[in-house]
Amino acid sequence: MTKELYFEVAEFQARLAAVKQEMAKREIEVLLLSEPPNQNYLTGYNAYSFYTPQIVIVALSHEEPIWVGRMMDRVSAVMTTYLGDDSIRAYPETHVHSPVLSAYDVVANIIEEVGGEKARIGVEMGGYYYSARAHADLVRALPLAKFIDADLLVGWIRLVKSPAELAIMRQAGQIADAAMQRVIDMVELGVRGCDVAAAAYQYSVSGTADCGGGYPSTPPDLCIGERSIAPHAAWTDEPLKESTVVNLELCGNRHRYQVNLARTIVAGRPSDAFQNLADIQVEALNIGIERVRPGRTCSEVFGAVHEALSRHGIEKEARIGYPIGIGFPPASGERTAALRRGDETVLQPGMVFHMMTGLWLDYAGVTITQSFAVSEEGHEPLTMIPRKLFVK
Amino acid sequence: MTKELYFEVAEFQARLAAVKQEMAKREIEVLLLSEPPNQNYLTGYNAYSFYTPQIVIVALSHEEPIWVGRMMDRVSAVMTTYLGDDSIRAYPETHVHSPVLSAYDVVANIIEEVGGEKARIGVEMGGYYYSARAHADLVRALPLAKFIDADLLVGWIRLVKSPAELAIMRQAGQIADAAMQRVIDMVELGVRGCDVAAAAYQYSVSGTADCGGGYPSTPPDLCIGERSIAPHAAWTDEPLKESTVVNLELCGNRHRYQVNLARTIVAGRPSDAFQNLADIQVEALNIGIERVRPGRTCSEVFGAVHEALSRHGIEKEARIGYPIGIGFPPASGERTAALRRGDETVLQPGMVFHMMTGLWLDYAGVTITQSFAVSEEGHEPLTMIPRKLFVK
Repeated sequence: MTKELYFEVAEFQARLAAVKQEMAKREIEVLLLSEPPNQNYLTGYNAYSFYTPQIVIVALSHEEPIWVGRMMDRVSAVMTTYLGDDSIRAYPETHVHSPVLSAYDVVANIIEEVGGEKARIGVEMGGYYYSARAHADLVRALPLAKFIDADLLVGWIRLVKSPAELAIMRQAGQIADAAMQRVIDMVELGVRGCDVAAAAYQYSVSGTADCGGGYPSTPPDLCIGERSIAPHAAWTDEPLKESTVVNLELCGNRHRYQVNLARTIVAGRPSDAFQNLADIQVEALNIGIERVRPGRTCSEVFGAVHEALSRHGIEKEARIGYPIGIGFPPASGERTAALRRGDETVLQPGMVFHMMTGLWLDYAGVTITQSFAVSEEGHEPLTMIPRKLFVK
Repeated sequence: MTKELYFEVAEFQARLAAVKQEMAKREIEVLLLSEPPNQNYLTGYNAYSFYTPQIVIVALSHEEPIWVGRMMDRVSAVMTTYLGDDSIRAYPETHVHSPVLSAYDVVANIIEEVGGEKARIGVEMGGYYYSARAHADLVRALPLAKFIDADLLVGWIRLVKSPAELAIMRQAGQIADAAMQRVIDMVELGVRGCDVAAAAYQYSVSGTADCGGGYPSTPPDLCIGERSIAPHAAWTDEPLKESTVVNLELCGNRHRYQVNLARTIVAGRPSDAFQNLADIQVEALNIGIERVRPGRTCSEVFGAVHEALSRHGIEKEARIGYPIGIGFPPASGERTAALRRGDETVLQPGMVFHMMTGLWLDYAGVTITQSFAVSEEGHEPLTMIPRKLFVK
């Protein structure tokens, strides 16, 4: 079977070493990774199987991480990870959504096998795939262990991307650009909302001639007309009418690395007031982007955008950006640093953010954004499409 | 603002009454629903916002459910639920992915407001959106309350669909059929895997001339060539080669109701052995479908398929189907009844399943499936595309 790895094994090993170093620092002997992006980061694993229990065990006592998942998906671990066969384990199909059998008993057995019966065990308490029941089952199965919240331990390490990761994210940015341009080209009066959404999917998954796209970790945010004042509304079958606002956020995904991109498009002529609002949003976005530089904090960048909007009487308190990288459902952003008031994370080269300065006011919404990597001297934009309101 | 509801308010009220009745039976005074399908079922809520804390509170003491979510998404609750403004609450943007503030403190305050400080509180311990931390935060904030696992309480009620739900699922089935047919039409030698995936998305979201599609709760399972022995592999950029097996599962989604459909397509001539395997799979599927009838159990249907495969020397132990209905990421199936050995759930008219008798052997995989509703006399198929191997 052909192994399919998008990074050198040495890169996976360096990531693992960084995680083990942090574990040692926190006196965590066994780390249970339930978050699919963390599993992908440390092993390469990539299959849509995380809706049943799936854990990667990192033990200081054990060289390789150990993947534990559903029997049916074992073959995907063989295909997509660098792990040896001994480090790929599975629980029987009988445990899937069973009212009586818990896959976490199988996980607990493997933890015991690597000497973790009485260990300090780190778990991702705030993760999407570590349910209250998963935790209760593990605590029951390992009564002598001590459980420690290690949420975001790997997340903070993932925050700074390697050159190999950045190379893939540039491709994801090219996919996002190509998809957005093609959607803008097809938007016109009479086109149904669902057909705009279909195009956003099609063009982002089809990608470019050189780089195909992966599935987006979230559907396109496509908020049209009356719904454009909501950030995360669903689309409908309604055809576009004159002067309808179309707010679209999509992403390019390459080998699970994701670059987000939002633009506002108006089918027909925008009102002067709306054009003015879009101009204000772009001005604030540009000011924020220019403020990005290694050594500055997330809070400083937020402050620049906040001030720019305040000058026009707009108070935006929501964060104006989040880190991006490996994307799995249900989220498109990472949960560590945020471009928000009070976040004193210092920007470093290799960090990648989606600056999302979208405005949702009572009467209108506009979403023009920019993904970028922090570079040595400032920022490197990951998408190139002009930061402006598109009028069709 | 136009309210957008896909069911009569009376239907939401009937669903709520059924849930409250079950709560009373179990002596649960307050039920916290974290699962997006359950939130949608009881209130209509539909926006892609569940990646931050979002809870629907059902209290026996309170007439309406109370939606609690992120401030930014409040407007979506106004747009898509039947709830009055008092029943729509929000926590500030500062609480989103905050290392210090918990949205569950806001939830706890509202629980106290409806008299739940010392209540027996039902929570969805095994749900996808009830993290270990969510539970810990609530237990800390409500020290006098007693927490009870009420996972699947709503799920079992959802298992039997109403006539209005079935009408929407028929539309979802038509979308799935149309999308699959169009993908089969475009599959040919030289087409890239990512372009097949793009087409699956495009056609299922575009839907039919009468019914647009919503986003699928899972990406298409598109497992090609060497990867067709894995059920949930990712696609690549590789162009299709002669005699390549293409296993595709997609779904039609209409107003969040989802109907799954998988077919195997071979680009070029299949080997005799592969055609034979596909014939065996279809034979077992047909036997399973014909066994469906009110009064029979899930286990009996499983047994019929198991026996049909055993006759050909194939032992399939994984479940061969799961209920479908409202679909939100990360899962496409419901977690209640399953077509598996030992599941004694009795089939009733209005239950809807995806019969997934896919075979993944060491050397080949084939995935030909059928979604159906249990009818008064047997079954009603929800997709019409022939159950066979498609050769292009």
